Amino acid sequence: MTPQELTRLLTESIPLCQFMQFEVTGLDADSIVCQAPFEPNKNVHNTGFAGSLYALSVASGWALVYNRLIESKANGALVIKEANIRYRKPVTGPITCIAKFDDLSRDISIPDALLEISKVYLTVNIEYQSDGVTCGNLTGNYVIVRK
Amino acid sequence: MTPQELTRLLTESIPLCQFMQFEVTGLDADSIVCQAPFEPNKNVHNTGFAGSLYALSVASGWALVYNRLIESKANGALVIKEANIRYRKPVTGPITCIAKFDDLSRDISIPDALLEISKVYLTVNIEYQSDGVTCGNLTGNYVIVRK
Repeated sequence: MTPQELTRLLTESIPLCQFMQFEVTGLDADSIVCQAPFEPNKNVHNTGFAGSLYALSVASGWALVYNRLIESKANGALVIKEANIRYRKPVTGPITCIAKFDDLSRDISIPDALLEISKVYLTVNIEYQSDGVTCGNLTGNYVIVRK
Repeated sequence: MTPQELTRLLTESIPLCQFMQFEVTGLDADSIVCQAPFEPNKNVHNTGFAGSLYALSVASGWALVYNRLIESKANGALVIKEANIRYRKPVTGPITCIAKFDDLSRDISIPDALLEISKVYLTVNIEYQSDGVTCGNLTGNYVIVRK
């Protein structure tokens, strides 16, 4: 898929992604870069809202895994099972999320794994930045379920 | 504070809470109940969006701690440091979040603690439900920093 196709998929079918102005700006097989402006994603302190920072990060991870699922031509449904987020520094401007598979998840063949077992677990590490500074990070455990 | 005052604070100063139609519907010193409709919070599968479920839950926890901070008359700033969420079942209708302090956090005196140390850590357990069924839960670690 292209970054534009992924952006369209998420913003057209997830109202929150449209409201947050989520956009995929970089993509390869192992990593994705997504961006959003500050204004729709701020909080009572006029810094990044914890809920937005999480939602942007988790959507970035979802887009990375979904692209890999589509490119693999395997027949599966993608969901997230669990995630952990750490907020390290306040966000004061536009937000950039960078998501990458962990080493183990990068080496799994999704079609082969889905032939053997009905569920494939993939871990994605996502870091969010503002003004080029890393402000927090999320680990997401995604699952592809055989259809 | 009243549920209406908390709802107004969050929806007027956090654009995402307004978009998600976040509403505080029940409140006492130790627990809070918050609600949101399904439509603005759905995903590509037409179930609850992981990012919305998290953002609604984390805002519920924030409102619970903020109310306690205000009622205690202590002078502190409230932020979240870390959170973990588990998605157990898909959400298919309106969302209800129920947030409660953990036992240790419930018994802390915020004014006394802020006199002794500059930061107070409070853990909140939040469960989100749809159609009366628990669909997932979040643990949030909030921090009140002495002003």
